[in-house]
Amino acid sequence: MTKQTVMAAAPVTDLSDSRFLRACRREPVDATPIWLMRQAGRYMPEYRALREKYSILELIKTPELACEVTLQPLNAFDLDAAIIFADILPLLEGLGLVLEFARGEGPVLHNPVRTAVDVEALLVLPPEEALPFTLKAIRLARRELEGRGIPLIGFSGAPFTLAAYAVEGGSSRNYEKVKGLMMGDPVTWHRLMEKLSEAVGHYLLAQAQAGAQALQIFDSWVGVLSPDDYRTLVMPYSHHAIEIARGGGVPIIHFSTNTGGMLELIREAGGDVIGVDWRIDLATARERLGNGVAIQGNLDPVALMAPWPELRRRARHVLDRAAGQPGHIFNLGHGVLPRTPVDNVRRLVEFVHESTRR
Amino acid sequence: MTKQTVMAAAPVTDLSDSRFLRACRREPVDATPIWLMRQAGRYMPEYRALREKYSILELIKTPELACEVTLQPLNAFDLDAAIIFADILPLLEGLGLVLEFARGEGPVLHNPVRTAVDVEALLVLPPEEALPFTLKAIRLARRELEGRGIPLIGFSGAPFTLAAYAVEGGSSRNYEKVKGLMMGDPVTWHRLMEKLSEAVGHYLLAQAQAGAQALQIFDSWVGVLSPDDYRTLVMPYSHHAIEIARGGGVPIIHFSTNTGGMLELIREAGGDVIGVDWRIDLATARERLGNGVAIQGNLDPVALMAPWPELRRRARHVLDRAAGQPGHIFNLGHGVLPRTPVDNVRRLVEFVHESTRR
Repeated sequence: MTKQTVMAAAPVTDLSDSRFLRACRREPVDATPIWLMRQAGRYMPEYRALREKYSILELIKTPELACEVTLQPLNAFDLDAAIIFADILPLLEGLGLVLEFARGEGPVLHNPVRTAVDVEALLVLPPEEALPFTLKAIRLARRELEGRGIPLIGFSGAPFTLAAYAVEGGSSRNYEKVKGLMMGDPVTWHRLMEKLSEAVGHYLLAQAQAGAQALQIFDSWVGVLSPDDYRTLVMPYSHHAIEIARGGGVPIIHFSTNTGGMLELIREAGGDVIGVDWRIDLATARERLGNGVAIQGNLDPVALMAPWPELRRRARHVLDRAAGQPGHIFNLGHGVLPRTPVDNVRRLVEFVHESTRR
Repeated sequence: MTKQTVMAAAPVTDLSDSRFLRACRREPVDATPIWLMRQAGRYMPEYRALREKYSILELIKTPELACEVTLQPLNAFDLDAAIIFADILPLLEGLGLVLEFARGEGPVLHNPVRTAVDVEALLVLPPEEALPFTLKAIRLARRELEGRGIPLIGFSGAPFTLAAYAVEGGSSRNYEKVKGLMMGDPVTWHRLMEKLSEAVGHYLLAQAQAGAQALQIFDSWVGVLSPDDYRTLVMPYSHHAIEIARGGGVPIIHFSTNTGGMLELIREAGGDVIGVDWRIDLATARERLGNGVAIQGNLDPVALMAPWPELRRRARHVLDRAAGQPGHIFNLGHGVLPRTPVDNVRRLVEFVHESTRR
């Protein structure tokens, strides 16, 4: 099913039979589906052109622009899924934190959460009030994509990753503040995680209700924890958020990085698809995760910058380690890096489809 | 065997029966030995006082000062091993790179290795010429420690971690340059790793010959690689360095972080003791590593900043997960952080000894 044939076909209204959604359910597919985390981003000239006119937050908060950015990689490549252009941090803004994307520094939260009083002040509003722009962008993008036969993924940060941003006030080297709260004031920690898991769960659910046909929960920073801390202080809240989101009736992808020491716990927290980074072999991951879930991953994003023969060899290796079983969604192990050549993305997408076509 | 009884006893000349060295050989011990990575460092007022007068490189390159810093934590706490005060980067300086510890920025290498010509220019000198100061510091510290019954650990960075510094020119977010070399120019990569493994192996061997009674090889950054890249592009060189070092006849500790997805390969590369970080459960690690090696670790360094009851609970958990078997050396999963309270270190050392005494 190339882009050309889809575009020539009559509009499809039910995409549950699409390659991507079938793979989420571990059903046989005609070829391995592929999409890429951060597939809309700085590596694309179309995106950079928009960024010259608008800030990241303007792109995210203007539904028409967010929809346009969402579609950019779909216009350029034969990808099997779109992901709504958004960010994990506006959810914290919705709770009352003051967010800024400072130039060259990454995101900063000017009033980080450090005490019980700070946690009590966080206000969990309905997603329609807290994040209306992303829900509207989903409605717009869903309409655009349906005619092309491409399902749309909604997403949220996971409670721990959001807590880490909220408490540290930005990115961090050793996560001393968030772990300090976790270890030093467990009552406040649990209250913070309760609020975040409610906000995340209902945000994901609202995205499904707005039209997202799959949901991804990003726990990008959870790999800084020990398995025991994850099990007791984090997993119940990831689980709770996922349980709320399941009300949307769409597949849920649970993504984390640096969790090779506790992959079984990530699975236990929930998700129909487990997204893994490149730090674990895909066959090992499948063995440890069992056959009850699909797997998404796991090319090293730096490989997408390698000369094509080397990139192809590495893509082939990922496919080999997935062993041709259904329930594999090809992706990177993390987001596309800004210096990635556009041509490599195009060739990778073609290669994954062509070399797996049944 | 408390510090008091050792100090009262007659000078010991052979420490092979010490608690730490017995644990390295997986022999029964009277109590679990403990030392801490970066046990000499900014968290100690004695260290900060010296750092007001000298730069890090001055401390490292003046054997009398390096010896003094090595002894500081041994004077303060009942630790079971000393580790020579040094750094992994002077080895690169010895090969011809220009090293600077820039204030607030961490180490910078002003002429990073990027091409085949750069690699050819690296000159592997005998350790006695390249790093005489650390070998002299080992001789001095060994003499001081012998009367106290405390064995001394020598160390080096592993070939990959050193290559990453050498190619990136400092610390890195995505390791694009070092992976770029690895993926884009394998011939140059292999030549670089050959040289580094020779330099590392002979440096470790020379440290053992100078008096170090154990050796630790730090692969702090290797967790950014996929298992397949580690196996084919790194492991042979770690193995080669360890094989050379084995000529010293002392136990070798192989330490890495973020390698929960490939612990078996770390073990395959070599080492009598495998050092693991807190991202894996110690019982799981032992199961995956088998009984042929001892294990070192693995308290989260941030836990050392927690209130004492919480720190004690976490130390107890690490000991429980080690299941009281011989062949466990208590340590953090990485180095002591600068804001760690000195009292917590003292209490932790006492607690590990007292609660494991047989």
